[in-house]
Amino acid sequence: MPYSEKILNRSVDPATQKMLGRAEELDLETAWDRYEKMLPQCGFGELGLCCRICNMGPCRISPFEDTGPQKGICGATADIIVARNLIRMIAGGAAAHSDHGRDLAHTLLLTAQGKSGGYEIKDEIKLSALAREYRIETQGRSKEDIGLDLAESVYAEFGKQEGFVQFSRRAPKKRVELWKKAGIDPRGIDREIVEIMHRTHIGVDNDPVNLILQGLKTSIADGWGGSAIATEISDVLFGTPEPVRSMVNLGVLKHEHVNIIAHGHEPVLSEMIVAAAHDPKLVEQAKACGAAGINVVGMCCTGNEISMRHGIPIAGNFLQQELAVITGAVEAMIVDVQCIMPALGDLCECFHTKFISTSPKAKFPGAIHMEFNEEHAMEIAKEIVGTAVENYANRNKGKVFIPEDTTDCMVGFSAEAIVKALGGTLDPLLDAIKSGAIKGIAGVVGCNNVKIKHDEGHVELVKELIRNNVLVTTTGCNAIAVAKAGLMLPEASAQAGEGLRGVCQALGIPPVLHMGSCVDISRILTVCAAVANALGVDISDLPVAGAAPEWMSEKAVSIGSYVVSSGIFTVLGTVPQVLGSPLVTQILTKTANDVVGAAFAVETDPIKGAGLMIAHMDAKRKALGI
Amino acid sequence: MPYSEKILNRSVDPATQKMLGRAEELDLETAWDRYEKMLPQCGFGELGLCCRICNMGPCRISPFEDTGPQKGICGATADIIVARNLIRMIAGGAAAHSDHGRDLAHTLLLTAQGKSGGYEIKDEIKLSALAREYRIETQGRSKEDIGLDLAESVYAEFGKQEGFVQFSRRAPKKRVELWKKAGIDPRGIDREIVEIMHRTHIGVDNDPVNLILQGLKTSIADGWGGSAIATEISDVLFGTPEPVRSMVNLGVLKHEHVNIIAHGHEPVLSEMIVAAAHDPKLVEQAKACGAAGINVVGMCCTGNEISMRHGIPIAGNFLQQELAVITGAVEAMIVDVQCIMPALGDLCECFHTKFISTSPKAKFPGAIHMEFNEEHAMEIAKEIVGTAVENYANRNKGKVFIPEDTTDCMVGFSAEAIVKALGGTLDPLLDAIKSGAIKGIAGVVGCNNVKIKHDEGHVELVKELIRNNVLVTTTGCNAIAVAKAGLMLPEASAQAGEGLRGVCQALGIPPVLHMGSCVDISRILTVCAAVANALGVDISDLPVAGAAPEWMSEKAVSIGSYVVSSGIFTVLGTVPQVLGSPLVTQILTKTANDVVGAAFAVETDPIKGAGLMIAHMDAKRKALGI
Repeated sequence: MPYSEKILNRSVDPATQKMLGRAEELDLETAWDRYEKMLPQCGFGELGLCCRICNMGPCRISPFEDTGPQKGICGATADIIVARNLIRMIAGGAAAHSDHGRDLAHTLLLTAQGKSGGYEIKDEIKLSALAREYRIETQGRSKEDIGLDLAESVYAEFGKQEGFVQFSRRAPKKRVELWKKAGIDPRGIDREIVEIMHRTHIGVDNDPVNLILQGLKTSIADGWGGSAIATEISDVLFGTPEPVRSMVNLGVLKHEHVNIIAHGHEPVLSEMIVAAAHDPKLVEQAKACGAAGINVVGMCCTGNEISMRHGIPIAGNFLQQELAVITGAVEAMIVDVQCIMPALGDLCECFHTKFISTSPKAKFPGAIHMEFNEEHAMEIAKEIVGTAVENYANRNKGKVFIPEDTTDCMVGFSAEAIVKALGGTLDPLLDAIKSGAIKGIAGVVGCNNVKIKHDEGHVELVKELIRNNVLVTTTGCNAIAVAKAGLMLPEASAQAGEGLRGVCQALGIPPVLHMGSCVDISRILTVCAAVANALGVDISDLPVAGAAPEWMSEKAVSIGSYVVSSGIFTVLGTVPQVLGSPLVTQILTKTANDVVGAAFAVETDPIKGAGLMIAHMDAKRKALGI
Repeated sequence: MPYSEKILNRSVDPATQKMLGRAEELDLETAWDRYEKMLPQCGFGELGLCCRICNMGPCRISPFEDTGPQKGICGATADIIVARNLIRMIAGGAAAHSDHGRDLAHTLLLTAQGKSGGYEIKDEIKLSALAREYRIETQGRSKEDIGLDLAESVYAEFGKQEGFVQFSRRAPKKRVELWKKAGIDPRGIDREIVEIMHRTHIGVDNDPVNLILQGLKTSIADGWGGSAIATEISDVLFGTPEPVRSMVNLGVLKHEHVNIIAHGHEPVLSEMIVAAAHDPKLVEQAKACGAAGINVVGMCCTGNEISMRHGIPIAGNFLQQELAVITGAVEAMIVDVQCIMPALGDLCECFHTKFISTSPKAKFPGAIHMEFNEEHAMEIAKEIVGTAVENYANRNKGKVFIPEDTTDCMVGFSAEAIVKALGGTLDPLLDAIKSGAIKGIAGVVGCNNVKIKHDEGHVELVKELIRNNVLVTTTGCNAIAVAKAGLMLPEASAQAGEGLRGVCQALGIPPVLHMGSCVDISRILTVCAAVANALGVDISDLPVAGAAPEWMSEKAVSIGSYVVSSGIFTVLGTVPQVLGSPLVTQILTKTANDVVGAAFAVETDPIKGAGLMIAHMDAKRKALGI
């Protein structure tokens, strides 16, 4: 191996290692370098003991009882400060997911009204199913009419002041009753987020338990509300994913093509970019520029979205976004919202790459802003793709360095696709769980984080799970990591334990099922709810567990919270900023069990993390008598 | 003076000085002590250069270009980090105000439905006026029917997804056009707050200007939306304030009475506490316990609310809340939401004082939680007051130390009351401004902050303004500070410049007009809008200015932002956590002028702060040719 220890310690992914070597050669800075420069990180911040909520502060609570302040100026203790900081992270995460869902609701609204520029309702079966959940009449009505009613209903979930979020009623009755009893059955999505911000204002909620309950409530509004809306309406507009072959890693960039990376989250943009790239005029123009064609690839959750609906290749996950630019082969990095490094601006200036922002909500230094809207979607998408095509002429071929690494994968296991793969009912899955062929189901999700060797947490944890006959569902950056590791192919069942291997071989599915982007964790909830309902138990009774081995974003905090609130034990692979409060740590890792029937564990070693999940499944199996 | 230099440096208020001496005697800790223990405060936090938005961090940007990191791990620069932190403060503040407004809307809804336990629509004139703004039919309809429609309309403002916030249309047309042009005309209140949380998530908005515009937009939704709703619906339910005599400072606590302090913000609770304290049975019970009666007094904004509607005395402002407990004469400290120090819990345990929390949104360590709801409002209020009465027997008279200080004041200058005092039209005010008798109008508002000698910033700035013929309107902790200083009496016009003195004497009003609580800054906006509309100009053309000499809360950040967004130059007396970004500092203090026609200044010296305001008014007068 030609790479330094430093590089080998940064990532297990060969393409990433190569690009880190290339970055060193070119003396370009990446997130890992900035992390090293940031060390040592602030210990108060790491422990959650820093409060910047009012201008009497900033306050810092000493982690040592005998030295330094034990209370902030207002009197807030470590417990209060940690709890407030934690639930503000949930507010940030839930807001991000919700706004994503809101944009989809808005797109459906415009589409049903005939005002959108290029969208259509593609999945009428799902449209009808969702309409029924909202008790919208479907008989004899056009898809636009049904769509309009549905759009108005889901759009209203965000601003609802009272009542409940409809999709939350997919959860087992016992779960809903538990939420009601604990006071965490959410009202409108926005209202809960805003209430977090109110409660965490100076001099409002100063009870860690009360604060955390509001955090859980808001997270439920995310998982069963905002995120579920994002998923479901995406399916209505763009089609519910079905298994499809795709490819992953930086090698999907092509030497002879105009390379366009669609990076970010919302399919409202990326679907149109994909469509625009097929425009014969633009393809012609690309050829006229000397390119063989236009190669659109995805990055991060946008990658997941377009991959599972169109088989579009995924260039990489979160920590690979800078590396993609460093290949020198990217004509345009097109972004919308979330997890887009502002560092891309300076980096793109070192190459010919055009960094194109499109959302009014997200501008970046060094980016060209080409604002996207649904009304003129196709028109703008073509303009953006055209800009990329024109830029091909500026590529400096001498500076191009594309690692050859790619891996095949099978993606697109929506809940509907899983049922279809099972032959139309959940029974084969239930039977396999009951027989023990499948020990349990894991949802392994989340980001990359420079604090963990890139992809190692994801891959090792998932490998250990499938070895132990745990069927793994995955989304987000985890999905991309395990796809790169070759685990998302039917033949990867060879790496699974005997029971799981048999099931995968019988059904022709991989041992790791790609369920989509971060908001699609709602699909995992839907599957868990369906399984629990089929067995007549609560989700917390099931042999299921979650993990976020390399999480870093506030969305992940919200996700972890709604997964636990849904009754699913969850292992975090990076340490949340809560250890400064023994009470909050206790609530999250122990007391939560008494309230929502599940809790968090923190385990940075992925093998041990998998072990905790397996032990949990064994205990749940025993309790179920299977 | 018997007090140490330390005490004299903490407050200019004699009652506060006495109580700080008493706290020293009893070896009790106050916010000032905790502040001293916190020194030195974190320099990164003070400059806004600390980012805890994702779990790759915490990141800290070096304020020195040559040493230490200049970018966070994601690549965020000082400008981005400072802007994100700033607008998250706006989100917190706007959320607090909005939830206050939402609670009032909800109370009106229940009242109109006949479901509330003791509320009624008291101001039918205002009800009709507001109904007209919403184009609700009033002719021949009962107040409950009108109230129901109005309640539904204002309640809907929080969750609105599109359109505009109705009360924002009180602003001059030019102002609304300017907001539209700048893209900062808010949609629903909650939506804007949530969008801040989304945009400030990792990898979303990384453009300081775009971030700050969203901050301003959200703040407008607060000032002209959530806060205005809080004010207006309070008036409908509890009556629009009219000038009334009251008293202020800790001397309002009584030796021989059951002392109840209503502390916090929302009149929904305090109105009922005031009413319950008049219950003959409870009064009888108090007497049976050996007390002369029940003495309800207010604290902070709750103090302002009940003072201006009932002439109830105000015990003090934010930094006096602990001192009130230290008198040993308080049977119950009843709180709802906002600016309530969690330190009160430990402190109350040193005395017999019962610390009673009432809001499901705000619990405190050491508090008894007696949850309040509108449906059973009077019933619960009586129970709470009863708890206080019972506690009188536990008072240790040997431990009682009440400073004798009280000051008379005249409070309750709602916009309607001002017009009434002017004889029914704004003309006398306009004439006085045109003639120069009144140089301009100032809104001086905001909190206390341990970083500034208590009340000194407030009092000195206001004195300097009235000396220079500036009519001062005030709310919140500033109002209480200047009331304590005797400036809120008609006879205080002796301290005013000749022109202002003449106007005050002619009208029988004080030179400083008490307009209410923090949310009532909406009243100041209403007056400014009315003056601007009467003159046919924009608010930014008027000789008006704002100041927050001792601000500390996130609400104050939102207030400052909507005041500036409304076109009013605003002086901050404590330094906001933004100086780490020269760009953000420049935007707030300079560039904002080009966008919204007003900007901030930071000036910790109150006399110089007043000077900036006066110079601004002179310049505006000149531009208007008056």
